[in-house]
Amino acid sequence: MAVDAGRFLSDLHALRAIGARGPGVVRRAFDADDIRARHWLAERFAEAGLTPRIDPAGNVWGLRGRLLMGSHTDTQPEGGWLDGALGVIAALEVARGNPDISVVSFQDEEGRFGATTGSEIWSGALSLPAADDLRDLSGLRFGEARLALPATDDFPDPAAFDAYLEHHIEQGPVLDAAGEVAGIVTAIVGLRQITVTLTGRQNHAGTTPMAQRADAFRGLAAADRAIGNALAPLVTPDTVWTIGHITLHPNAPSAVPGRARFTVQWRDADQARLDRMEGAIRDALSRTATDQGLGLEVSDTAALPPAAMSPDIRAALCRAAEAHAPGRWREMPSGALHDATNVARLMPVGMLFAPSIGGISHDFAEDTDTDDLTTCLTILDTAAARLTA
Amino acid sequence: MAVDAGRFLSDLHALRAIGARGPGVVRRAFDADDIRARHWLAERFAEAGLTPRIDPAGNVWGLRGRLLMGSHTDTQPEGGWLDGALGVIAALEVARGNPDISVVSFQDEEGRFGATTGSEIWSGALSLPAADDLRDLSGLRFGEARLALPATDDFPDPAAFDAYLEHHIEQGPVLDAAGEVAGIVTAIVGLRQITVTLTGRQNHAGTTPMAQRADAFRGLAAADRAIGNALAPLVTPDTVWTIGHITLHPNAPSAVPGRARFTVQWRDADQARLDRMEGAIRDALSRTATDQGLGLEVSDTAALPPAAMSPDIRAALCRAAEAHAPGRWREMPSGALHDATNVARLMPVGMLFAPSIGGISHDFAEDTDTDDLTTCLTILDTAAARLTA
Repeated sequence: MAVDAGRFLSDLHALRAIGARGPGVVRRAFDADDIRARHWLAERFAEAGLTPRIDPAGNVWGLRGRLLMGSHTDTQPEGGWLDGALGVIAALEVARGNPDISVVSFQDEEGRFGATTGSEIWSGALSLPAADDLRDLSGLRFGEARLALPATDDFPDPAAFDAYLEHHIEQGPVLDAAGEVAGIVTAIVGLRQITVTLTGRQNHAGTTPMAQRADAFRGLAAADRAIGNALAPLVTPDTVWTIGHITLHPNAPSAVPGRARFTVQWRDADQARLDRMEGAIRDALSRTATDQGLGLEVSDTAALPPAAMSPDIRAALCRAAEAHAPGRWREMPSGALHDATNVARLMPVGMLFAPSIGGISHDFAEDTDTDDLTTCLTILDTAAARLTA
Repeated sequence: MAVDAGRFLSDLHALRAIGARGPGVVRRAFDADDIRARHWLAERFAEAGLTPRIDPAGNVWGLRGRLLMGSHTDTQPEGGWLDGALGVIAALEVARGNPDISVVSFQDEEGRFGATTGSEIWSGALSLPAADDLRDLSGLRFGEARLALPATDDFPDPAAFDAYLEHHIEQGPVLDAAGEVAGIVTAIVGLRQITVTLTGRQNHAGTTPMAQRADAFRGLAAADRAIGNALAPLVTPDTVWTIGHITLHPNAPSAVPGRARFTVQWRDADQARLDRMEGAIRDALSRTATDQGLGLEVSDTAALPPAAMSPDIRAALCRAAEAHAPGRWREMPSGALHDATNVARLMPVGMLFAPSIGGISHDFAEDTDTDDLTTCLTILDTAAARLTA
């Protein structure tokens, strides 16, 4: 059971070097560095006595015991070095000393094609043929991209595992602000996302009077305001919503924008609230489009339900945290989505958070104190030992 | 003096074929099709007995007489087939029958690098070394781009010309809505443009509470509203302003936008109003950045003053319009910028507008009735004959 903190940190930094960009990392699902990292990981699994396996969705497995641990090694377009990679390498280190562990790195957690695509496929919520038609923002299909990482075997049978334990950075400011070392997750919030297209009339920016314009950007700006107003009476302080991706057409300084396409994403732990928010957002978009004389299309709706964590796994993590970091941990919800959301469809799941310095995540500057990383590794190892005893 | 309408239309369609995209055209300054079009034009000048010449800025000249006529053959990213090409080909046809004419196609009128760059350089308002440092949206320098179209000679001496007469489509809905055939321009509005960068904090869209965000897109949406409110008391119905180009960073659905860069452009015929608008826009941006906790940078300020047309050229155009389209023409300001704005620094200038069907411009769907094109050609020829008599 003795984890080796030095070996764990050495592995983390070796993985960080694959796709490094300054302090951060870029490994988009199925890009060259992501594939390199997945082959590197399969070699580490073999060295540790696990049976390496790559499934058709690009998930990389190290098979041995009935407690599945892991996370993902793909990153955002500007990813932090820890994020999900922390959970995969911590699981590898725990598995070296505990024969009842299997390890996984799920694919496309960061949503190049979908959102938590690899674990969604494995959980049965998304079929492989349906996943193959997902496209990244450049139009590349998942089905085409995954040819670059050939499967060695079919998907592992979920019945081979009793439970799933995921370690990840918090990606928010709570633990760091409180000076705490670990967070035990109570539930993962649900997520909804739609792609909205507002269509106006592209025209000359000098000769088209303001009153005669149908300006798709102005519609987007108004939609942001209308959505904010519509959501205000529905939300809690933990609810979030984001317009994060925008494409303007023709995107020229002297042309009135004829088309704006953008994502609207919202998250909350309450399924009923997610529904009410979707109604309010769609109403706000309809009103905005009508007011501004714009065409409206809503497409690519994605939904992930909130997921509760297993009471047994929570209890094991809490006991281990109190043993190794007494008084310096808390239970908390996860505002971020994780592969555990999908795996919860198959078996009991639990999650352990390490602090994020300054709450910074999905950014090259993301980091965690080394002492906190090794304390969390010990908590994880102790909890895994209890769960496999 | 006899213009040949068939030859004129045949030339227009031959030029349309270079860079054709369906009914529209793409010839960005110094791209392969723009250069092909400029060599094609130089050959037409030579055939017509004009002396062809390419200057260091990429302007193409057909030199013979002291009345300079023309416009530009480069296009917007999704350009109409007429736009400035109409004025160049009409000038060529007039010059075939009138030895007192020279013809020019200015470069980069459509602002790939600057705005009316070629005529701005020739007018002395922009030095060639300063122009060389202008960059397009991909970062390519004007100085590098122009190497693809080597100069045959230095710039022609402006003293070789007495006046400049430009024909162009209206690019607005006024003539078409009134069923009129021609517009004689009274003045060209001035233009200002700035590039604005709002900098927030890029972070995870699930774990960052709304109250703790510094969302650069939300700042952009608020800036649009603040600018509109600030300008309302200052503007006339003819004043326009546009946010037409936006770059969001990192532009991912699950990341709070850390940076938004966008252009703000405004136009008016009154220089003092342009100044007041600039003050109001900069104040609105400062207030928005402060309110939202964002960094603000304003760069790449561009300014073109309003330009009055020559009374003599206006009178010649009005007489010719009344002769060939009695009661079906009007005098009007130009809401669009033209090369004539720059040439007005050097000599008297005048402009003739053909109608734009539906007011559509800077769009592949731009068009004008053939009868209106040939009537305008005749008006232009008659006015040129009077001015060179």
